[in-house]
Amino acid sequence: MLDLTLDAGALTAQIVDIESVSGNEKVLADAVEEALRTLPHLTVDRSGDTVVARTSLGRAERVLIAGHLDTVPLAGNLPSRVEGDLLYGCGTSDMKAGVAVALRLAALLPAPNRDVTYVFYDCEEVEAERNGLNRVGRDHPEWLAADFAVLMEPTDGVIEGGCQGTLRAEITVRGKRAHSARSWFGVNAIHGIEPVLARLNAYQARLPMVDGLEYHEGLNAVGVHGGVAGNVIPDECVVVVNYRFAPDLSPEQAQDHVREVFDGFEVAFSDHASGARPGLTDPAAAAFVAAVGGTPRAKLGWTDVARFSELGIPAVNYGPGDPNLAHQQGEYVSLTKIAEGERAMLAWLG
Amino acid sequence: MLDLTLDAGALTAQIVDIESVSGNEKVLADAVEEALRTLPHLTVDRSGDTVVARTSLGRAERVLIAGHLDTVPLAGNLPSRVEGDLLYGCGTSDMKAGVAVALRLAALLPAPNRDVTYVFYDCEEVEAERNGLNRVGRDHPEWLAADFAVLMEPTDGVIEGGCQGTLRAEITVRGKRAHSARSWFGVNAIHGIEPVLARLNAYQARLPMVDGLEYHEGLNAVGVHGGVAGNVIPDECVVVVNYRFAPDLSPEQAQDHVREVFDGFEVAFSDHASGARPGLTDPAAAAFVAAVGGTPRAKLGWTDVARFSELGIPAVNYGPGDPNLAHQQGEYVSLTKIAEGERAMLAWLG
Repeated sequence: MLDLTLDAGALTAQIVDIESVSGNEKVLADAVEEALRTLPHLTVDRSGDTVVARTSLGRAERVLIAGHLDTVPLAGNLPSRVEGDLLYGCGTSDMKAGVAVALRLAALLPAPNRDVTYVFYDCEEVEAERNGLNRVGRDHPEWLAADFAVLMEPTDGVIEGGCQGTLRAEITVRGKRAHSARSWFGVNAIHGIEPVLARLNAYQARLPMVDGLEYHEGLNAVGVHGGVAGNVIPDECVVVVNYRFAPDLSPEQAQDHVREVFDGFEVAFSDHASGARPGLTDPAAAAFVAAVGGTPRAKLGWTDVARFSELGIPAVNYGPGDPNLAHQQGEYVSLTKIAEGERAMLAWLG
Repeated sequence: MLDLTLDAGALTAQIVDIESVSGNEKVLADAVEEALRTLPHLTVDRSGDTVVARTSLGRAERVLIAGHLDTVPLAGNLPSRVEGDLLYGCGTSDMKAGVAVALRLAALLPAPNRDVTYVFYDCEEVEAERNGLNRVGRDHPEWLAADFAVLMEPTDGVIEGGCQGTLRAEITVRGKRAHSARSWFGVNAIHGIEPVLARLNAYQARLPMVDGLEYHEGLNAVGVHGGVAGNVIPDECVVVVNYRFAPDLSPEQAQDHVREVFDGFEVAFSDHASGARPGLTDPAAAAFVAAVGGTPRAKLGWTDVARFSELGIPAVNYGPGDPNLAHQQGEYVSLTKIAEGERAMLAWLG
């Protein structure tokens, strides 16, 4: 049982210690649903392992506060532990600290100055088609109706505008099988990926300015597999690459770029997700920026602001975690930043 | 049920159509055992999926005729099919044609001029510790007692002396995990294998002369794997290499060579098997060469002649399959070569 009377830092630790690697969010989603159902001012809905809770106060404006419940695979970094001001553990920064702040707001604000929709969803860290927010947007779009959205992904307490897009592609090199004792009768497909890796190592990433914010792209191998048996020259080797592209490119333009980089190779695209331009000049976004303060910057990681952008809802990233620590073995979050985030959000909605 | 009254070519097809990828030899071993147990002149023993059958005629000399029952993984090449003189299918050449000839000898020779031990064994195509001949040599060495051995591995009907050794090593490159949207905080281990592949592509294999026969070495990647998740810079990538070394090197010298090639990288050795020098000057080997005829040449693939060599039994490779076709999708064997092999062996033992 999650205890929403704990301060947001202690609540983060409780949430982190419920392991929820993508696809395994059920126990945590159950705990979140159970905690929210004790709050009489909220209507609670559930779809799979996504939980949505709403106030219905008839306010002129409705805002949406969202966070994903899943994490990347563990790296020997659970259970959580506190050292001074830092809480260590898988998902502390990305993004259970944000989830904890949102749950605290749900508990502390029976009558916020705007109607609020809280969304806690599954499978953000994996292929787009498994994404819980995507599923709810398709199956229950009315649950997501809002004038403005704050996604509590890690931003180190700074408002981050827009996000970069992402796509994955498989670069396949083919060869010819042979017995490895007479390898000259075959063509080794693993040896054949050397030039693919050479192009990745030589790649110069763009740092374009978009709507006044600087983005930073990246093109990386995130997987490689090849091999038939220990005595066979392999006839196929696949390099999976991930391209993170700035929001001045459409997914189609990004695909063209990847095709160009790997010109001469067999390239097949799997999933992709559009980026989102910063859009901070939108009135609803500007009001949030004014209330929270600070200087907005570009969001480098892909986040579901792009999904809100597609639904026509202006959205920003704002959360207490440090984005540079996300997905790292030594991931942590500052307890001070969590408390500051909670205070800023309460000031905006209270 | 195998029909040992069929000619050796038709019997090969029967055997090929019983799928027996390494680890899955039971059905074929059962069929071989059942067929041999119908022959009253043989004593039949079994260990796991290895079947041993012996005459006991009190001859002055005992010879051993051996073949493995397993094949490499299928490649859409079953069931077998005949086109003209060629029988196509997984294992036709390596080495079910040899197995068929040995079974025919067992059926046709109730009173050979030498006592004969027939050995049909499992798991030759995988790690040395799973090898059925290895297991029988350890658990029942008396079953393998012999003055000379003929291993019916594919040699295209030519006697092949000795064999090359083989070893496998894992070359591990390590990096640092990070979110792929901020890849510059990590170190990509997959990108890091580029120089490993460059060394493999630049490698010049030796062609040394040993006891008058020319060998041909090879160093190849046979597997590669790396990757954590589609949005994580991977912190580890492993290239599995297979070194086939001429019999003038011991396994220890071969390991030293691999360490030297991958100097600066993390190298770990898994299994290895010694080569065997040709040894055709041994009297028992020379008698077989005189009976069968032809000009012996070097055996390039590793075979269990090395295992007989370690047991002190002179041994040669001699079989109807074409070694250049082994482990290839389009593997086949000549029906004429099978018949010729059967005739030569009958002439030697009849």
